[in-house]
Amino acid sequence: MPAIPELIARKRDGKEHSRAELQQLLSGASDEQLAAWLMAVYLRGMRPRETAALTEVLAASGEQIDLGDLPRTVDKHSTGGVGDKTTLVLAPLLAALGFTVAKMSGRALAHTGGTIDKLESIPGWRAELSEAEFLAQARDCGLVVAGQSRDLAPADGRLYALRDATATVDSVPLIASSVLSKKLAAGAQVILLDVKVGRGAFMPTLRQAKELALLMVEIGRRAGRRVRVLVTDMDAPLGRASGNALEVREAVAALRGEGPADLVALCCQLAGEALLAYGASPEEAQRRPPEALASGEALARFRSWIAAQGGDPRYVDSPELLEVAPGRSEIRAEQAGTVTRVDALAVGQAVLRLGGGRLRKGAPLDRGVGVEVLACPGAQVEAGTPLLRIYHREDADGLLRLGSARETLRGAVQLGQSLPRLRPLIRARLPLQRR
Amino acid sequence: MPAIPELIARKRDGKEHSRAELQQLLSGASDEQLAAWLMAVYLRGMRPRETAALTEVLAASGEQIDLGDLPRTVDKHSTGGVGDKTTLVLAPLLAALGFTVAKMSGRALAHTGGTIDKLESIPGWRAELSEAEFLAQARDCGLVVAGQSRDLAPADGRLYALRDATATVDSVPLIASSVLSKKLAAGAQVILLDVKVGRGAFMPTLRQAKELALLMVEIGRRAGRRVRVLVTDMDAPLGRASGNALEVREAVAALRGEGPADLVALCCQLAGEALLAYGASPEEAQRRPPEALASGEALARFRSWIAAQGGDPRYVDSPELLEVAPGRSEIRAEQAGTVTRVDALAVGQAVLRLGGGRLRKGAPLDRGVGVEVLACPGAQVEAGTPLLRIYHREDADGLLRLGSARETLRGAVQLGQSLPRLRPLIRARLPLQRR
Repeated sequence: MPAIPELIARKRDGKEHSRAELQQLLSGASDEQLAAWLMAVYLRGMRPRETAALTEVLAASGEQIDLGDLPRTVDKHSTGGVGDKTTLVLAPLLAALGFTVAKMSGRALAHTGGTIDKLESIPGWRAELSEAEFLAQARDCGLVVAGQSRDLAPADGRLYALRDATATVDSVPLIASSVLSKKLAAGAQVILLDVKVGRGAFMPTLRQAKELALLMVEIGRRAGRRVRVLVTDMDAPLGRASGNALEVREAVAALRGEGPADLVALCCQLAGEALLAYGASPEEAQRRPPEALASGEALARFRSWIAAQGGDPRYVDSPELLEVAPGRSEIRAEQAGTVTRVDALAVGQAVLRLGGGRLRKGAPLDRGVGVEVLACPGAQVEAGTPLLRIYHREDADGLLRLGSARETLRGAVQLGQSLPRLRPLIRARLPLQRR
Repeated sequence: MPAIPELIARKRDGKEHSRAELQQLLSGASDEQLAAWLMAVYLRGMRPRETAALTEVLAASGEQIDLGDLPRTVDKHSTGGVGDKTTLVLAPLLAALGFTVAKMSGRALAHTGGTIDKLESIPGWRAELSEAEFLAQARDCGLVVAGQSRDLAPADGRLYALRDATATVDSVPLIASSVLSKKLAAGAQVILLDVKVGRGAFMPTLRQAKELALLMVEIGRRAGRRVRVLVTDMDAPLGRASGNALEVREAVAALRGEGPADLVALCCQLAGEALLAYGASPEEAQRRPPEALASGEALARFRSWIAAQGGDPRYVDSPELLEVAPGRSEIRAEQAGTVTRVDALAVGQAVLRLGGGRLRKGAPLDRGVGVEVLACPGAQVEAGTPLLRIYHREDADGLLRLGSARETLRGAVQLGQSLPRLRPLIRARLPLQRR
């Protein structure tokens, strides 16, 4: 067996690792050695076969959930966006379509939100479930979302901490293996991925996002899972609401058929991908998701899911009861014009400054604050028309935070004189569809 | 002040560091962060100005010896070879020429020897000196060599340990800064460097050795020291003896005017470089070193130096008294021919297997074992002519080691039918000489 420095030298010199080498590195290398190896991977790259092997080695480094006897399992992951409440709508929609969604979800970090934090806006709802509770609810309800308390892919956690400290986060093979290692360990047969591209997203360019998407499809294929990816626009926030409770309100609206068009379209498209992955025709994939929303079946699944995890279902029936911060402050147009852009990153950072996100793991956050987009790209506005509404606290700290958020949002909504060329929400789909 | 990951990202992206950035990295980065940075340096390189700044930051990380009032200080470093007893001859030769040599020297590691281990073959000689003893002897005797017990460039020690673990040793800017950081901290105004090239050496090719040499001259210039470099051949061992006591015997022979021509030539050339650095004419630089050897002045300096550090001078007067292992075993020519090559690496490894070197720091070694080259490149031999002589112990362990050494030496002396094209010992000189 070669020594660890010899393995590092192989990657340093641009060679391809075998699975055995990757196993040896992950089990035998010190943190210093892994850090040097990660930099070599960043600069030299990894081939798809090698990245798939790394993903499987990471997935096998801890607990692996066996969903074997559950029907039509589907998992979903988003690379993190602003105002991204997709899981809140998609998960019950998938359950309504007959899939099993037994999912681990994350918490907010930096300017991106976390599904668990959003759901905790609903009084009583809890993310911590035992393994028995988790599997029982998956079987009985077809839908369960738990916090990432389980020891899934701990080696990925170790690598991620090193990447964060050593400027090696932004590497396509390292991102792909990190995302999919946890999804492989979580056990679902079909994995839907929503790769965000644009200013509020991890991947700044369409080219990089497609490269990541293609690689993740290939890793899934090699690991015997069906991975389907949408590359979606994240220049503007998804929907209109950003902030935990505000997003739950908007998700319930979408499940009632009153939701913003972009959110509804994305959820229907993702649900269609799951249908296709399980052999449905393109016609079914297009027809059935909107039907499941329109029939109220998805909303009913949402209600029973929330209740099963201890949440008070009255807040589902009357989401206006969800507590939001009482203060209101608007950003208004300084002149007449057409909205050409709403900067998702600025909106995400404003929510963070209001106290609705967290800069480090474990920090508390305020679920009631947020930002609402009042004028979306393409809207015609007059001077003085409200563009953004801020939900804030009214104590001294809240007003200080409001000032900071208003500063962040200055120029977040751009006005022009002509209608912008609006980009489609869905920029790419992978794998390429066979006719 | 930027965060450490931002500094790592700068090198990752091929940017040049400022001195302040390097200081921040060395003082603020964790071992993991430095390891990733070292890999980025390995793959992206460093510019000369940047490497000079790194060298000075490393030199300033610990104790810096002040030789300020000592006349005409000279230090010397070799990048490590087989049978390299240059310091034993050169240091007293420099003292005889009126220079002050106040030097820290290293111990054997892997197949390369260490001056301190060689000198410890002389009964009573000791390498551990207090600072006061060190400076007093430098002033009184003009010549002192101590072990590297002092805290010189500790940050280099930290980087070196990380490089060793992470496959980033073999980088020209990292080698140059490591070598010169300790030499800058050791205080001499003129630094002579002997960069070995060839099979028994650190630098495998002449191109790399010249690149390293040029960079070290430039670092010296920027730090206000005069650095002069010879790039010398290390395909064959220097002289005929390899092994601690055997090499002391050979060094004393050279000081008596009976030494092997290559060793004497290299020492005279290096001493000439010191003379040139202090303003002597080329004619003086060529004439004075052989004179100082022939007059017996260099030998007298050697004797008083050894005595000053506690060594018994009778062993200088009668070096045949130095204990060597009693067993003798010869490798003989299998056919008639001309010696085309003696493999320095194989000889160094044979000495290591005999117990005359060490694989890890601090391990004990046997100063009496070794290998003597009986037939140098160019020699005509008959079948049965002895080519190499092995000095070994005769107990069971010694005979086992002998077997291993003979295995290593199989094919170390290559025979051909025609005279080989012999390479000159001195392959390059830097800086380039002005006429």
